[in-house]
Amino acid sequence: MVIEESSVVAAASSSARFWSEHGGFRAEIKGVTKIGQVHFIWSGDIKKLRFVFDELKLFLRDRAKSITANMEKRGGGILDFELVDLRDKIDNYYQIRVSFDTQDSMGANFINSCLEDFALSMKDFFNEKDIFQGKEKDCKIVMSILSNYTPDCLVKTWVECDISELDNIDNELSGKEFVEKFQLAVRIAEIDPYRATTHNKGIFNGIDAVAIATGNDFRAIEAAGHTFAAKNGSYGSLSHVEIEGNRFKFYVEVPLAMGTVGGLTSLHPLAKHSLKMLGNPSAEELMMIASAVGLANNFAALRSLVTKGIQIGHMKMHLMNILNNFNATKPEKKKAVEYFMDHKVSFSSVEKYLNGLRGAKK
Amino acid sequence: MVIEESSVVAAASSSARFWSEHGGFRAEIKGVTKIGQVHFIWSGDIKKLRFVFDELKLFLRDRAKSITANMEKRGGGILDFELVDLRDKIDNYYQIRVSFDTQDSMGANFINSCLEDFALSMKDFFNEKDIFQGKEKDCKIVMSILSNYTPDCLVKTWVECDISELDNIDNELSGKEFVEKFQLAVRIAEIDPYRATTHNKGIFNGIDAVAIATGNDFRAIEAAGHTFAAKNGSYGSLSHVEIEGNRFKFYVEVPLAMGTVGGLTSLHPLAKHSLKMLGNPSAEELMMIASAVGLANNFAALRSLVTKGIQIGHMKMHLMNILNNFNATKPEKKKAVEYFMDHKVSFSSVEKYLNGLRGAKK
Repeated sequence: MVIEESSVVAAASSSARFWSEHGGFRAEIKGVTKIGQVHFIWSGDIKKLRFVFDELKLFLRDRAKSITANMEKRGGGILDFELVDLRDKIDNYYQIRVSFDTQDSMGANFINSCLEDFALSMKDFFNEKDIFQGKEKDCKIVMSILSNYTPDCLVKTWVECDISELDNIDNELSGKEFVEKFQLAVRIAEIDPYRATTHNKGIFNGIDAVAIATGNDFRAIEAAGHTFAAKNGSYGSLSHVEIEGNRFKFYVEVPLAMGTVGGLTSLHPLAKHSLKMLGNPSAEELMMIASAVGLANNFAALRSLVTKGIQIGHMKMHLMNILNNFNATKPEKKKAVEYFMDHKVSFSSVEKYLNGLRGAKK
Repeated sequence: MVIEESSVVAAASSSARFWSEHGGFRAEIKGVTKIGQVHFIWSGDIKKLRFVFDELKLFLRDRAKSITANMEKRGGGILDFELVDLRDKIDNYYQIRVSFDTQDSMGANFINSCLEDFALSMKDFFNEKDIFQGKEKDCKIVMSILSNYTPDCLVKTWVECDISELDNIDNELSGKEFVEKFQLAVRIAEIDPYRATTHNKGIFNGIDAVAIATGNDFRAIEAAGHTFAAKNGSYGSLSHVEIEGNRFKFYVEVPLAMGTVGGLTSLHPLAKHSLKMLGNPSAEELMMIASAVGLANNFAALRSLVTKGIQIGHMKMHLMNILNNFNATKPEKKKAVEYFMDHKVSFSSVEKYLNGLRGAKK
């Protein structure tokens, strides 16, 4: 996990330990489709374009053969082309929205190379086809680029157990009370964007830590996930709770365009090493791993929030950072950790404690 | 800039060079307010709560004095408390939404410590006040936590120049044509979530690279920015174009909760070093710097997209990664860079070229 916030690692570990004894994390891939778009302006008879669209598809596929050959050998390639008519938003504006299977690569370079090729071919196609006349022959390409919004490259990951198994999770709450409070906290994140932002941020704490460790593009992952969280018109939680009878289930659904080959994943030595540590997963397995870490972080954060609060744990983790800042020696660190077991950690309280310790020595 | 994607640094540099000769980047801080929430369930007469709300505010402020003292000395602290009634969404559910000024710190620890203190005080307040009776005395705290959605911690950053100054930006397009195409590309990102996700991702390429370099929490920044992009019910572009007469203006408005003190910013030696390289900026200055880098990246991406496409530049940058993967020597790298000036870069084309080079030697 590559991240500057030490409590993210601690939270994931604590969740992992808990769920390892209660059935573990489970995941399923809902899809792996990636998306790209050729944006163009064209003023012509849309019926003509629809009439020759299947022919255009074949033409684009054929022209791009040299680019797609290797990907096809690996079992991936172009899936389909869709004509998107957005003239109600912008005059004469259309897209060709292309779907791809990029196998174990994130696929950005492959998709962008295909799309730039399609754009060139489209200009030729419109120009050469007899059905188009006059200004219809002029297809104005605006740009050709993959979309990082990949709602169909989706993984669902969950934990579940009997509610009675949660009876000892907190000193004050029974399993049933804990689950009710936990569900309420998730419900709040479902309806309030102010809360949802922080809630989802906690999920990406874990996902990004895996993405960065494995050389994946965390900005693409973040952008896709947050757009997905806003897909119903109001920004909400990516994770949800289901309670059926005595069964508690906590799950996250998140789009994750990750790769385990291509890009930096195999070029950067640390990314390569991280993938090795993970047992050289496929892209689909990495999606499951990353989302499980995200869900683990989310569970740990909510668990703390609805019980003892997050500051106790967070500041305990931060204690070592502060001690390092004051160049604390090993014996000083040991003493400080003991002392702050039942004292409030803050920058000034640690400074004061160390000064006391050092003054006493002199 | 700390980032795994080398073309992000190249794109920012290219934009920076261009705009340094055309008026530079300008920025203004629209606000620095941070937000926290105490979520609670309470079944009582809301009129009573409103009646004593000012008293509650004073009570909460007073009880938190020991936590806020230092922040107040630095000119920050609690700004205000707002009672948010969300009973239409969840039975008996309210929030106290608290606004903070955390000066040069991102403020997460400060805000969370305040909120957890408020939660304890609220329980006492409801219990002790005579106006509340029976079940009204029971304020059930769900959780207390900062919100990473900070729409009022906002920076606006822009570049602008006369359209005629853009006449030489491309071989094929005049300044006027370039500006029109550029504006259209931004307009598309304003109306299409598929395009907007990638467009904004490009902005965060730059912002995150600065956030990570300076030890700031990039997940918080990403989450806030994307929620902000979805605030009008449909996910859209964070950057916009204004054309007035002969004047082209390109700007981004983005919430950025950044810090230059506290957290890891001064504890991690590389974060400390990065801040020193930036001239030890205030948090407000760092907001301006990060958003300027984000806007620079966005400009470079759009400029490439609407002219020569992004793959040429991107794969040129990637060439060095691939050469390193094959342990290319310095002379081999030099030859390869020359060769690929006018040849298409791909993993296999570089492999083939190197094999040729090495075979020829033997």
